[in-house]
Amino acid sequence: MNELDIIRIVVETIGQPKPRFSRIGDDVAYLPTKKGRVVIKSDMLVEKTDVPKGMKLWQVARKSMAMCVSDFAAKGVIPSAALISLGIPRGMGEREIRELAKGFKKAKGEFGVEILGGDTNEAEGLVIDCCMIGFADAIVERKGAKPGDLVITSGFFGYSSSGLKIMLDGLKAEPKFRERAVSAVVMPQPKLKLGVALARNNIISSSIDSSDGLAFSLYEIANNGRVGIEIDSLPMMGDVRIFADMNGLDLNDLVLYGGEEYEIVATMPADELDRAYKVAKRIGEKIIVIGKVIEGIPKVYLLVNGKEVSVERRGWVHFK
Amino acid sequence: MNELDIIRIVVETIGQPKPRFSRIGDDVAYLPTKKGRVVIKSDMLVEKTDVPKGMKLWQVARKSMAMCVSDFAAKGVIPSAALISLGIPRGMGEREIRELAKGFKKAKGEFGVEILGGDTNEAEGLVIDCCMIGFADAIVERKGAKPGDLVITSGFFGYSSSGLKIMLDGLKAEPKFRERAVSAVVMPQPKLKLGVALARNNIISSSIDSSDGLAFSLYEIANNGRVGIEIDSLPMMGDVRIFADMNGLDLNDLVLYGGEEYEIVATMPADELDRAYKVAKRIGEKIIVIGKVIEGIPKVYLLVNGKEVSVERRGWVHFK
Repeated sequence: MNELDIIRIVVETIGQPKPRFSRIGDDVAYLPTKKGRVVIKSDMLVEKTDVPKGMKLWQVARKSMAMCVSDFAAKGVIPSAALISLGIPRGMGEREIRELAKGFKKAKGEFGVEILGGDTNEAEGLVIDCCMIGFADAIVERKGAKPGDLVITSGFFGYSSSGLKIMLDGLKAEPKFRERAVSAVVMPQPKLKLGVALARNNIISSSIDSSDGLAFSLYEIANNGRVGIEIDSLPMMGDVRIFADMNGLDLNDLVLYGGEEYEIVATMPADELDRAYKVAKRIGEKIIVIGKVIEGIPKVYLLVNGKEVSVERRGWVHFK
Repeated sequence: MNELDIIRIVVETIGQPKPRFSRIGDDVAYLPTKKGRVVIKSDMLVEKTDVPKGMKLWQVARKSMAMCVSDFAAKGVIPSAALISLGIPRGMGEREIRELAKGFKKAKGEFGVEILGGDTNEAEGLVIDCCMIGFADAIVERKGAKPGDLVITSGFFGYSSSGLKIMLDGLKAEPKFRERAVSAVVMPQPKLKLGVALARNNIISSSIDSSDGLAFSLYEIANNGRVGIEIDSLPMMGDVRIFADMNGLDLNDLVLYGGEEYEIVATMPADELDRAYKVAKRIGEKIIVIGKVIEGIPKVYLLVNGKEVSVERRGWVHFK
């Protein structure tokens, strides 16, 4: 039983919501209103499994909100407000609570999200559940990719998985890379402006937040769109390659199967590329074309020396 | 450091939301929309501290949603949908997950709340965070009680605290009472229809869900309304008295300081009482007048043999 089994069993049992409500299974959920939609998302962060040693409490608090913001980013929706439920272990003192609160305050300012309340409980380990809410006329769903579309990402991959290995296993890294990789873990930067700008300009056909890993995210787009995906160029920089070589790691593993990266993975019509670049440039963000959507069964391939290699459908799954 | 200290520190640090959003500190939060409000609430249930031995997993799942529904009931708002975040301990198998899911399904049907998704994580003990959402033109707040108003409850108190003592400490009870008291703990029945009907008919001036205990709830109404409260008749039945006598417990303690009771505690103008009785009767619910709102400092008094006795401001607080 892993996370995916649990979700399958629960959804089988409770059933999907009635029409006009979002179906279970996208990055965010929504409810219909007379005009537009109310968008909600909840994300639980559990210290025991989600927080590497060395991460500060205020960073944990900030990240619990950044995780939700990243889902909103991928859907092109601006989040307005949040509720924070806290499970606090016995023995946590005033200093720690103040530090947590400082992280929430930082996230509130950084992401422009009001904090309206929440719930406080005693728990065995620290648990933070963030529920975020916003308004939109429409959202960009995981489904919608069309053969011929380009596959894009909002940034380069491999930093979070490298950062986790540095923090958890003490792998060696050059100082500058260490800083960038650890920062990807403890201070993730969701691409909210970019996601909203791409959606407002009707540029993307499908989209997902990459927090479960690049491979997994691509499979979600492929499965939901009933299309194949061919990746010809993985979104990575030379420094990840150096880190992989230095530690005898598989480069593709770091980039494809990492998880905890808060980038947008999306598809878009090829003839919109110029416009997409312009939109991204205007707000100081980037778009990286990594491949294309193809007809056929929902599989993801990587072109290696002109040959198609299957990408595995795996990523960050709890209870592995 | 108890729950109230934690909330105080967090709110001091992050600050209240900007105008038009609800302020932190009521049973639910809301966001402004062009027309009306979006109402949200999150409630975390932690097995270790919130679930007595003997309670079934499906009841735990159902209760995690019932807790939110009770807050909506006190505010007179119909909840539309929910997100469920799960922290699942390692070792929980398919049978247990199915049972949890069964409880969510039951709550979905019973309360008419769609389940739109959530999040699944590994945690040390079972944690369920329910975030619920609904729509309303206005909500009944904790503030609003006026001197001269009557203080009412939607039911009798003392069953949950008795039930917890039966389940946790093995106290003796008559079979019928045991069933009723244990049921109050494991199958709480939020008074959603009554709360919504009272609000729609503009009958109540302030209201709160009693899950932190009757005394605590009365103090919240007193503090928020800057009024005093005089209770002349505690909302209790003879069977709680028999249970208290049988076990050498203080009857007032059971009724006032219990917590985990999902009744509505509200205030209303005295001249609306007939109408309130009619509204309640029509939907098969009851209203119990327990006292009145008085001018003066925000304190709660109990009339005992014609004399005013101070009620303590205490109730169910985590980390006591």
